Amino acid sequence: MDEPRYVVGVDFGTESGRAVLIDVADGHELASEVYKYSNGVIDERLPAPDSDVVLGPDWALQDPNDYIETFKHTVPAVLARAGIDPSTVIGIGIDFTACTMLPTRADGTPLCMLPEYRRQPHAWVKLWKHHAAQPEADDINRVAMEMGEAWPARYGGKISSEWFFPKSLQILREAPEVYRAADRLIEAADWVVWQLTGVETRNNCTAGYKAIWSAEDGFPQRAFFAALDPGFADVVDEKLSRSIVNIGECAGRLTSEAAAWTGLPAGIAVAVANVDAHVSAPASTVTETGTLVAIMGTSTCHIVLSDSAPVIPGACGVVRDGVIPGLFGYEAGQSAVGDIFGWFVEHCVPPIYHDRARERGVTVHEILEEEAAALVPGQSGLLAIDWWNGNRSVLVDADLSGLLMGMTLATTAPEIYRALIEATAFGTRMIIDAFDKGGVRIDRVVACGGLPERNQLLMQIYADITGRTFRIAASAQTPALGSAMFAAVAAGEAAGGYASIEEAARKMARLRDEAYRPIAANHRVYDELYGEYVRVHDLFGRGGDPAVKTLRRLRREILEAAGPLHSGADPVVAERDREATPAGGARP
Amino acid sequence: MDEPRYVVGVDFGTESGRAVLIDVADGHELASEVYKYSNGVIDERLPAPDSDVVLGPDWALQDPNDYIETFKHTVPAVLARAGIDPSTVIGIGIDFTACTMLPTRADGTPLCMLPEYRRQPHAWVKLWKHHAAQPEADDINRVAMEMGEAWPARYGGKISSEWFFPKSLQILREAPEVYRAADRLIEAADWVVWQLTGVETRNNCTAGYKAIWSAEDGFPQRAFFAALDPGFADVVDEKLSRSIVNIGECAGRLTSEAAAWTGLPAGIAVAVANVDAHVSAPASTVTETGTLVAIMGTSTCHIVLSDSAPVIPGACGVVRDGVIPGLFGYEAGQSAVGDIFGWFVEHCVPPIYHDRARERGVTVHEILEEEAAALVPGQSGLLAIDWWNGNRSVLVDADLSGLLMGMTLATTAPEIYRALIEATAFGTRMIIDAFDKGGVRIDRVVACGGLPERNQLLMQIYADITGRTFRIAASAQTPALGSAMFAAVAAGEAAGGYASIEEAARKMARLRDEAYRPIAANHRVYDELYGEYVRVHDLFGRGGDPAVKTLRRLRREILEAAGPLHSGADPVVAERDREATPAGGARP
Repeated sequence: MDEPRYVVGVDFGTESGRAVLIDVADGHELASEVYKYSNGVIDERLPAPDSDVVLGPDWALQDPNDYIETFKHTVPAVLARAGIDPSTVIGIGIDFTACTMLPTRADGTPLCMLPEYRRQPHAWVKLWKHHAAQPEADDINRVAMEMGEAWPARYGGKISSEWFFPKSLQILREAPEVYRAADRLIEAADWVVWQLTGVETRNNCTAGYKAIWSAEDGFPQRAFFAALDPGFADVVDEKLSRSIVNIGECAGRLTSEAAAWTGLPAGIAVAVANVDAHVSAPASTVTETGTLVAIMGTSTCHIVLSDSAPVIPGACGVVRDGVIPGLFGYEAGQSAVGDIFGWFVEHCVPPIYHDRARERGVTVHEILEEEAAALVPGQSGLLAIDWWNGNRSVLVDADLSGLLMGMTLATTAPEIYRALIEATAFGTRMIIDAFDKGGVRIDRVVACGGLPERNQLLMQIYADITGRTFRIAASAQTPALGSAMFAAVAAGEAAGGYASIEEAARKMARLRDEAYRPIAANHRVYDELYGEYVRVHDLFGRGGDPAVKTLRRLRREILEAAGPLHSGADPVVAERDREATPAGGARP
Repeated sequence: MDEPRYVVGVDFGTESGRAVLIDVADGHELASEVYKYSNGVIDERLPAPDSDVVLGPDWALQDPNDYIETFKHTVPAVLARAGIDPSTVIGIGIDFTACTMLPTRADGTPLCMLPEYRRQPHAWVKLWKHHAAQPEADDINRVAMEMGEAWPARYGGKISSEWFFPKSLQILREAPEVYRAADRLIEAADWVVWQLTGVETRNNCTAGYKAIWSAEDGFPQRAFFAALDPGFADVVDEKLSRSIVNIGECAGRLTSEAAAWTGLPAGIAVAVANVDAHVSAPASTVTETGTLVAIMGTSTCHIVLSDSAPVIPGACGVVRDGVIPGLFGYEAGQSAVGDIFGWFVEHCVPPIYHDRARERGVTVHEILEEEAAALVPGQSGLLAIDWWNGNRSVLVDADLSGLLMGMTLATTAPEIYRALIEATAFGTRMIIDAFDKGGVRIDRVVACGGLPERNQLLMQIYADITGRTFRIAASAQTPALGSAMFAAVAAGEAAGGYASIEEAARKMARLRDEAYRPIAANHRVYDELYGEYVRVHDLFGRGGDPAVKTLRRLRREILEAAGPLHSGADPVVAERDREATPAGGARP
């Protein structure tokens, strides 16, 4: 390529959307811009002027207009900042949180944008962390078991309230008029691509990981949906589509309307929508088997590629072509990682460390890390089990809570901080072991996301505990870079892009130079501690001792008896509370 | 009694000594005075001019001169402050920490007061919390088991490094010249009475609870001591005495020298020495069976009276006449209570609560208690096991460490604070249950000490968890009051005192009006939580799962490998470290 070519990637996150402008030749990021959603996460009441409409516990909505505004604010900004000729941009790609879904008219108009539905919470976008469909998820899991459905095996045995069909079923049950009015129920990822192209497509990544679809078997059978609710029997044919498009393909061409929003040339390639975590794998250079990609932030998502699809206990899903065409992509996860460290700093760190951080102009995390780094493995005598927000992989159990043992009168905050880091690393090793035992080999790890960027001690502990070398993705914006890479693939070689995501990854994705390699002496001690972790994990997590579950049940009973005063204080508890009040949810 | 009569009680604590002047008629406290020991707890180096003599880890010494100074400073002060005629004082009694012991010449001169031994740490007073004789305690326990000794059954199966013979054997092993020079090895309690009376007596309380003596069997047999060390074979006959005097008796009469120190009349009765915890029972009105006396502070000591002496697992000792003549007195204990709350406030409470405390001019404990009081049982979903300093009763295991489970991302510091209070209350219930199951009935509890005075929430939680009514001793100085009561008994009826400690208790001891009664609804929830506590307690404490022990062992190995850098950081770990370096200890 003599002439420079550029692509735009747009990453739709929970609080904001971010665009990056990327050089196709080498993946260099020329500019990036963030747009903070004006209505953010809507979890207490609808936005003004309808803020008298109060949401139930565990609701989390978004305003689809914020997605359009993201395009309008960020793409022109990166073009202007980079000072490039817009005609050199050959494609745009997007990734999104998932499952984030909404009901629309046949022409794509979100129901919440119609005056008659504006005050109806079920007409809005249900964000991934809308957890109010737990009764529906429970019913789906129960009915699947009763009917002997095969698909749960692909999803670690059960699906979560965050997924597409629990959310859809909740609309039908609680707002049948909205369900009827919805010509389409669609992932927000696909909806924004629809807005860019004027063409409705459905990507195989969200379909596979969040909507129980597979290339081999399609969606669950009609009888299964009918068993949930007669009115739900034809949800796929009435509201979704059986035509699923693979990631890496071109969804359509940029419309003139979208060209006006973005300042990009009309007619350029728009990539099929993707998911933030999954698109991070090629953006972290990973397009082959043998490597775990860990997207580490408040929680951690793991992506593993494989050329076969054995059942891996506790994996959240396995989808053929779901991450990289031609390979099975596994997803696994730890439901709280950075969130645990954040909790600790907020709730358990005494003033001395805050003072020290202030004096030195650094974060409390940095002070704790510094002191924790002076400890050697095993020295604190502490062991934690990282269940502060339940356990996604390998137990798939939201009803678990955290555990810390080994405290003496001399135990210090940095010691506990280190034990919490170690606990999340042990959790990662449990997941790696589950893959290994299941026949999916993992030799190395590539980490990306907010945590590995900042925290050297954490990375070294992860390497020491897992016995694997950890590399870090060079980009600080792997999802947006990944979307830009898929844009280059959607544009294709002829337009100056690439023929495949593998080729795009070779050219556009990079790792940092440094590698975190296991230190043998540390690994030996951690091997022994890991033995303790596994035994205590299995003891309380697999039914050997009911204490953790009993505490949660008691707490739930007491909060229920106490009434709505306490609900919502704890997202997980609130999620479970909801089971007992299926009539709850939106209170318009 | 027409004419007023007074008694003086002197309580020798860890950091200071305290005298009270008490009205014999009704126990009213006229005045009290504290003397802070000038040399305090000597645990790093000997006092100047010998401060180049550095002590080993786990050493804790005192200066016997501080005890004499206590008499000189406090007794004249209370007499002056009360403005009474000293001739109306009919007796003096003392209580002491135990086992706190020292080597002396035949005339009672402490070896450490002789110039030739002043720089020898083993010549000084070994304070109760001198833990450097752990190897000796281990040997004593091992040899007792090998020889099939009967006495361990009276002491929960093994004795601690704090006791009389481990400390004595450590002197013999590490400083044989001091051992040889010591005509007497004696409890400090008995030594101060010796200083007051000019007569060496040995009280049955410290002999029974700390020196393996019983009225029935005396001391262990010569062959037992010989098996420990040939030079130790005749320790009882060479260094102690087989003549043991019961508490409640008169040890002797105040000498003119001691009268000059104190301003008291020469010739008044001096009570046989007693122990701070044990003397608190009658000072809390308890002289009969059926009541647990809980002396609650940094740790908790429990005293229970019984008319029989079944083996109670985990009780620290049972001594006939050891607390109240005619009854068996049991001692049990929790090795950390207030210490755990103190640890939490120091190491785990974020700035917001410290700020709030400062703004309102109260302690952080008060802020936490206030917020914890707004919670209901079970609401936090937390459960703690109170092993921050091991477990004395019922497991007799210093190698245990604390456990906290049930944390979520919404868990707050006041919730954890409450869980820690609950854990110590569950620990108390375990002890009550052990007595109940062993055939020693406990219907009610009387608490005294620093904690129950200040902390209403704590008392209510203890009542709710144990299902027992808690009353609080009226005196804030129960040990000193108890010593004064024993002084009245030593003086006898003829001198205006009492014929028995029971009578003294009826007249001189009182409870506060308020009672903490179990709230049925709370007790029900706590019953269920207690079930979890017991199961997890037994799981990790009785060998069901080795995690807690493994963490401790790993920690010890790592600290040992790291060398002396870390020793002493944690008293318990340091205690165990000592096992591996029996040549350690004093480094003159």
